Amino acid sequence: MRLATLRHGDGTTSAAVVADGIATDVVGAADVGALLADPEWRTRAASADGQQTAIDGLAPENWGAVIPRPGKVVCVGLNYREHILEMGRELPAHPTLFAKFGTAITGPYDDIAIPAHAADQVDWEAELAVVIGERVRDADPAAAAAAIAGYSVLNDISMRDFQNRTVQWMQGKNFEATTPLGPVLVTADEFEPGPSIRCDVNGETMQDGATDDLVFTPADLVAYISAIFTLEPGDVIATGTPGGVGHARTPARYLADGDELVTTIDGIGALRNRIRTR
Amino acid sequence: MRLATLRHGDGTTSAAVVADGIATDVVGAADVGALLADPEWRTRAASADGQQTAIDGLAPENWGAVIPRPGKVVCVGLNYREHILEMGRELPAHPTLFAKFGTAITGPYDDIAIPAHAADQVDWEAELAVVIGERVRDADPAAAAAAIAGYSVLNDISMRDFQNRTVQWMQGKNFEATTPLGPVLVTADEFEPGPSIRCDVNGETMQDGATDDLVFTPADLVAYISAIFTLEPGDVIATGTPGGVGHARTPARYLADGDELVTTIDGIGALRNRIRTR
Repeated sequence: MRLATLRHGDGTTSAAVVADGIATDVVGAADVGALLADPEWRTRAASADGQQTAIDGLAPENWGAVIPRPGKVVCVGLNYREHILEMGRELPAHPTLFAKFGTAITGPYDDIAIPAHAADQVDWEAELAVVIGERVRDADPAAAAAAIAGYSVLNDISMRDFQNRTVQWMQGKNFEATTPLGPVLVTADEFEPGPSIRCDVNGETMQDGATDDLVFTPADLVAYISAIFTLEPGDVIATGTPGGVGHARTPARYLADGDELVTTIDGIGALRNRIRTR
Repeated sequence: MRLATLRHGDGTTSAAVVADGIATDVVGAADVGALLADPEWRTRAASADGQQTAIDGLAPENWGAVIPRPGKVVCVGLNYREHILEMGRELPAHPTLFAKFGTAITGPYDDIAIPAHAADQVDWEAELAVVIGERVRDADPAAAAAAIAGYSVLNDISMRDFQNRTVQWMQGKNFEATTPLGPVLVTADEFEPGPSIRCDVNGETMQDGATDDLVFTPADLVAYISAIFTLEPGDVIATGTPGGVGHARTPARYLADGDELVTTIDGIGALRNRIRTR
């Protein structure tokens, strides 16, 4: 199944099942996060019979972040094997984790508004997002895999100057409404990591990796993180980014007002966002 | 005013006003976080007329974390001036920020249960907690000060082995239900940073600082953070810890099963927690 969060003209949002060019609302679920909080979410989604909308009748602004306000966004640094090795580093023994608050998330086609004081070193990080579908703590590998509702696309937009002001990256990773997530969640039975992940800026491909080139797989990450705290439905794990970010280029390259950012994972879909500095 | 979150025998919690040895529930507010979400919280608290309980009739387990599940806990590293200078470092130009998720919080008198795999380097960090009382974004100094509902006591219990596994501290700072917060929130009109902050382990004083020895004041932090994202009612800022943590001692000293931890800020109160490894 493919799930989306749709914005309606009346200011409400709804969880919807996307199939055969039609989005069908799941009655009573305000968004995909709310849907996943119901242990019967698979059954509810499979029997969705709410308002139907042709996909091609939806404007970009009708697509919300698939999880608009996750309780937790756990991000992973340094996880793409080829990128680590090409930089001459050793493969890490433990995942590098940092946090985003839910306020960082924005929609898959929304403009990304950057405040002027943070607009100097805006960079991209295409990532495979893992979305949690059930409460899980101290998961063994099988329980960890079973707790994954599915996968989505995320761009961990990073203000490198803020990220590197101190030894902790958090402040460069948490600017409000700058992390697009979506356009859909593909359930775990229909997506296996492996397909290509790419980031294009104004039509030029900047990152191109394979979503199975991970040191720590999605299930590894769920197991590791759940030994620290409970993961809950709608929580998101951003699994790291392949090589090709702007900050590591010579010369460094950053996003500027008007740039178009397209973040794609084959088999899931693409985020299309325009950078707006203000 | 002094506000608390009380646990009742029936499994519910309530926000309560604590004065003259009596805790008076605020009708309709499930905890202090929920109370602060109402823009009229000051008026509601001032006119509290719910269930009354003598403080000395309350068991330790009746006291909940003053904000049981903050939307955000923004933590500050390296903020006590004397401690930074005695370590031979320069005063920082920007605050070092990292994140806790709300799942890390626990009550002021609760046992702190540490999983066996994380019990080797458990350390203390007594901190002044700032609690946000209104939505604030891009705050100037006056707006930042006005957004502070009040102050509480927090201990940023840190698993140093996890903290130092990678360059990002988050995983050592986020073990579930290991960060006590409370016992009360003292509103900003009744508390000015300055009084002593202490941490005692089994009766031995380990940290002893002054809550106004901060490089970045509470209002500075609100202004700085709100230039990154919106702070919302019930969000918590942990303002950093003075010298004397166990990891920096020679030899290093860590918390063990059965240790009693008392974290005090004069004018607010004391957290009393026992360490339990399991």
